[in-house]
Amino acid sequence: MAAAPSVLHQVPIALGDRSYPIVIGCGLLGDAATWADAPPATQGVVVTNTTVGPLYARRLQGAIASRHRDVHVVVLPDGEAHKHWETLNLVFDALLGHGCDRKTVIYALGGGVVGDMAGFAAACYMRGVPFVQVPTTLLAQVDSSVGGKTGINHPLGKNMIGAFYQPRLVVCDLDTLQTLPAREFSAGMAEVIKYGPIADTAFLDWIEENMASLTRRDTAALAHAVKRCCEIKADVVGQDERESGLRAILNFGHTFGHAIEAGLGYGEWLHGEAVGCGMVMAMHLSQRLGYVDGAWVQRVTALLQRAGLPTVGPALGPDRYLELMRVDKKAEAGEIRFVLIERPGAAIVRGAPDDLVRQVIADCCRPS
Amino acid sequence: MAAAPSVLHQVPIALGDRSYPIVIGCGLLGDAATWADAPPATQGVVVTNTTVGPLYARRLQGAIASRHRDVHVVVLPDGEAHKHWETLNLVFDALLGHGCDRKTVIYALGGGVVGDMAGFAAACYMRGVPFVQVPTTLLAQVDSSVGGKTGINHPLGKNMIGAFYQPRLVVCDLDTLQTLPAREFSAGMAEVIKYGPIADTAFLDWIEENMASLTRRDTAALAHAVKRCCEIKADVVGQDERESGLRAILNFGHTFGHAIEAGLGYGEWLHGEAVGCGMVMAMHLSQRLGYVDGAWVQRVTALLQRAGLPTVGPALGPDRYLELMRVDKKAEAGEIRFVLIERPGAAIVRGAPDDLVRQVIADCCRPS
Repeated sequence: MAAAPSVLHQVPIALGDRSYPIVIGCGLLGDAATWADAPPATQGVVVTNTTVGPLYARRLQGAIASRHRDVHVVVLPDGEAHKHWETLNLVFDALLGHGCDRKTVIYALGGGVVGDMAGFAAACYMRGVPFVQVPTTLLAQVDSSVGGKTGINHPLGKNMIGAFYQPRLVVCDLDTLQTLPAREFSAGMAEVIKYGPIADTAFLDWIEENMASLTRRDTAALAHAVKRCCEIKADVVGQDERESGLRAILNFGHTFGHAIEAGLGYGEWLHGEAVGCGMVMAMHLSQRLGYVDGAWVQRVTALLQRAGLPTVGPALGPDRYLELMRVDKKAEAGEIRFVLIERPGAAIVRGAPDDLVRQVIADCCRPS
Repeated sequence: MAAAPSVLHQVPIALGDRSYPIVIGCGLLGDAATWADAPPATQGVVVTNTTVGPLYARRLQGAIASRHRDVHVVVLPDGEAHKHWETLNLVFDALLGHGCDRKTVIYALGGGVVGDMAGFAAACYMRGVPFVQVPTTLLAQVDSSVGGKTGINHPLGKNMIGAFYQPRLVVCDLDTLQTLPAREFSAGMAEVIKYGPIADTAFLDWIEENMASLTRRDTAALAHAVKRCCEIKADVVGQDERESGLRAILNFGHTFGHAIEAGLGYGEWLHGEAVGCGMVMAMHLSQRLGYVDGAWVQRVTALLQRAGLPTVGPALGPDRYLELMRVDKKAEAGEIRFVLIERPGAAIVRGAPDDLVRQVIADCCRPS
């Protein structure tokens, strides 16, 4: 962590007048040069949580001090269980309490939950203020920091209230991944592996070959993984920013995964853990529909296991799974829409007969 | 109200792929033909309030039944005092409780408060569902239904949390203005008159000549007033959708007006009443800065009085006025930005010395 700051990759996200760069490297967060292109404003507000804040907030605060006369830090409680309106309102209270104007820049310093909440706060405060993502978890670096999805949960569903709102800049400082607990790292690996089945079999091969380097958090391996994931996601989001079609493939594993999260109560399983297990279930459904063979499903399942992820679903019972999946955002007129693997490297979105889904739940989950 | 449905004017709002029409006429709300171009969806949700709902919700529900298999009605408490998160959440509870998907169309049936909340709910539900405005007050027809501003209040400031989100269609049924209480009608007239000083002296002349017809709610006069206001607002919003510059002139009277509303507690004065009085104060400030003469200020003030509006501000005291105006969204780095009349028919946005503002407050408000 004492090495000189270095930018290893830069991924441009092309979305017209909402385009922005993702900068990937080491020692970036505390380096003033990293922030030279951040929007200028009198006030900057760092939104973080009780876990990440003590590690990095002061360093970031110092590095952006040249861009803003005042830098405030808002520390939220940590975890998916707090991703709701009351926590979001702490950000609004701070912004208004400090008299922040509509040019104020909000920096999201933390994982996916912090990014989703800080981004939604930025989207809504005075109908929109500039927003910078500083993702500190693997999951956030490869997934939630790209594509502009922001939001909060509602007791009846995950991410039900939110906005599409693009950041001006994303800085992925790989050093922050060194302090990530093993379970969080594994959860992030689920979203890394996700890009293989839906879009890039060569990347899936690369992950298999480099799993050892990744799990020991080798910087070069991490840099490549983060870059490739961001590239794939940028390509998909660039074609369908507001998820009217193609973009939905990025939700591979998320239909079953959201049901796991909601069914157990948010925070019981990490989001990435639920998505990894959801991918196994979605692959089994793809197999039952004749798209992929069992050997390939086993190969990807084994890779998820090597990444330290659970691959057997909790015992919610098929009725509860189905009930929870019917309120998924992809559902239309009550029909559940699944992201399925049509062939390795290519995904489609479609419905499936309830009885097939029940069989998959019986195959992939603990008995209820 | 028994006359055949008729469209009197149609105003196109040109905002690229977010363009939409404003349809102005009589008997429109309950006529299925009005809704032929509303987005198709399994579910439609009418958001209204306890005052407007009993008058028109069933009629609208029947007319849109051909567009949606299910039409639900959500009735919110009436008034600016309820324009906050807890009320907004009633809409989310209903949407999720009915299992509404991301194609669900939300209809805002009511005044500005209903429009702002239903629009913000539409902007946020599943990160955005289609939205139709059915404004039933004069103020909403000439102002809040055009331009896509949605949002809620925060205890520390009005409209501080919101989004720019365009409707797919706006239907102004002039019949609904016949049931409007006199005080609400006057409040709407403040926003009608507003367009004269900032953009169109000929329209100001027309209002003076037709004030009697307007106050007896003559349909032809109302139709012209609504059309001309929508045209002017459409022209301004088309040039600056997200209020980075020109659009701010539409906030003429709103800087002082918001201070009046917040200082007295939301709902004590109607929004239009506060804006009308705020226009008087902004004109006095324009006069003190040498832009307009006293005779012209008196002329517009007399017109506001003829419309039944208060033109003397409440006794909040200059310190409180200034404090409240510093949290206005137009303020930058603590400097209050006023919309001033540079010459009749042309507005500018700029700061003003505190002592001048204090003199204006002394001139225009009850002694504190």
